[in-house]
Amino acid sequence: MTESEVEIVEVGPRDGLQNIARFIPTDVKIDLIRRIADAGFTRMEFGSFVSPKAIPQMQDMEAVMAGLPPMPNVAGMTLVPNAKGAHRALAAGVKNLIFVLSVSEAHNQSNVRRSTDASIADLKAMLEEIDPLNELTIRVGLATCFHCPFDGVTDEDKVLATLEKIIPLREGMEYAISDTTGMATPAHVKSLTKRCIDTFGGSARFCFHGHDTAGFGIANILAAMDGGIRSFDTSVAGLGGCPFAPGATGNIPSEDVVYLFQRLGVTTGIDLEKLLDAGTMILAESGVPMASHVRAIPRARLFADLLGIPPSQAVAA
Amino acid sequence: MTESEVEIVEVGPRDGLQNIARFIPTDVKIDLIRRIADAGFTRMEFGSFVSPKAIPQMQDMEAVMAGLPPMPNVAGMTLVPNAKGAHRALAAGVKNLIFVLSVSEAHNQSNVRRSTDASIADLKAMLEEIDPLNELTIRVGLATCFHCPFDGVTDEDKVLATLEKIIPLREGMEYAISDTTGMATPAHVKSLTKRCIDTFGGSARFCFHGHDTAGFGIANILAAMDGGIRSFDTSVAGLGGCPFAPGATGNIPSEDVVYLFQRLGVTTGIDLEKLLDAGTMILAESGVPMASHVRAIPRARLFADLLGIPPSQAVAA
Repeated sequence: MTESEVEIVEVGPRDGLQNIARFIPTDVKIDLIRRIADAGFTRMEFGSFVSPKAIPQMQDMEAVMAGLPPMPNVAGMTLVPNAKGAHRALAAGVKNLIFVLSVSEAHNQSNVRRSTDASIADLKAMLEEIDPLNELTIRVGLATCFHCPFDGVTDEDKVLATLEKIIPLREGMEYAISDTTGMATPAHVKSLTKRCIDTFGGSARFCFHGHDTAGFGIANILAAMDGGIRSFDTSVAGLGGCPFAPGATGNIPSEDVVYLFQRLGVTTGIDLEKLLDAGTMILAESGVPMASHVRAIPRARLFADLLGIPPSQAVAA
Repeated sequence: MTESEVEIVEVGPRDGLQNIARFIPTDVKIDLIRRIADAGFTRMEFGSFVSPKAIPQMQDMEAVMAGLPPMPNVAGMTLVPNAKGAHRALAAGVKNLIFVLSVSEAHNQSNVRRSTDASIADLKAMLEEIDPLNELTIRVGLATCFHCPFDGVTDEDKVLATLEKIIPLREGMEYAISDTTGMATPAHVKSLTKRCIDTFGGSARFCFHGHDTAGFGIANILAAMDGGIRSFDTSVAGLGGCPFAPGATGNIPSEDVVYLFQRLGVTTGIDLEKLLDAGTMILAESGVPMASHVRAIPRARLFADLLGIPPSQAVAA
């Protein structure tokens, strides 16, 4: 991708829905994924093969996968927490897996009750077991790269040291540099993403996964872009629940990011109108308040600005 | 001010409250201003001396001014739309006046039914009449510098041409480069603010006045900073109503901007805790939904991050 082209990866069906209390029926999940694909996303999270006890929202993953229409242009990723989840994903036909581990020891201990090094060893064993011939696409979600809910700001050197341990496990993996708590500052995002790319860019692919907790989401996307990132995780309608408290928002809203890039003349390949429609559908089904700013702007006005038409004419039309 | 020091100008009592349907009683307005001053703001908008028919919310400006305690460290500005308003402001003891005109002809016609040039002529006449000895502090609010609700994106040259006409009227005036609709992109904000400062920085002071309609508010603050701006208008709790539609937010929330700068190590002089308290009060009194992201984060966690304490310890404490 060039400076004028970015990839937006939709994470709403996984990172968004998993934080929603109300169970979203299988057919609605399928409709959401279908609409997102139809809007032009070529990569997205379909969901996660996790314990139904841990995340009841994802209990119907096999049914979701079985019900999806053929989408040859879409790389659908699913998160798997362990070998059991990976086997379920493979059995359901998934070829793109996401493993998550935390740079912060405290967060990793809290999530999976083991050290970060133990999780790296688990990842190594899993990769050898489930994909000995290196046929799958693997993303490593690197949580708490900037800030940990227990330990606060994460040291940049710690992120680089963690990457140094994981990257040799296997060539060609992608790393989601994640602002798990949404508390990273733009300066921090630019600095760390640049260091990751400068240090490992030859042997690893990087994307930025942000949250909008502190309202820095859009600024952090631009900061990651300044750092050299060209792939960004976002969530339709800003789905993603609240990591800390009611009212705190989740992932960075896809609509806002698509609109941002379109206004900046950066190609995303996304049809904003279809994306807005997908968001309208899932907001109605999920009952969560919308987090996207752009959604509140009348469409005629929004599209007038994208097309360079005077809004007064577009609104009148 | 240096790179590590900025001025945040609170506009909630004017640009915020004027968009709120519910009338805020005089004593509450006074309490809000008092709390904002107590939080450390040294410059703010007290309100506007406009027609009570046009903006009923501001009908009690004389009573607000009369009821304020002495605040020797605060420069309180009031917006005046014309000579009548200016005389009311002066009679009430105001020394810092704001005049607003629009770079966009269509917006200026819509607001005051005259051309931008006619408004510049009005400003010249008003300044000669009300302040022949140049004893007042004057801010010119330059609306629609980036985007007009009728004409769309504003040409940068048009802003510079407008400034070229106004700046010679009087030395030492301040210019609020305003993203009136909140639809400016960060790239545009950086480009225009830099051009304004490069071209006129020797003879004029500039600040950035943004709105958060498209969710670009924080990114635009940082873009203006990149452009050379060190003074930013923000609104407590993100008060400011909706320029276009229900759900669209108003000014950029002061809490989020103060938190941003504090996390970045930039001095604001603002006590975030007192600012949060002021916001809690006015949200309760106004009944509007909060727009600030930072307000939704538990304070213990917020202040832990600012102090560099592990959030887990601070939350437990």
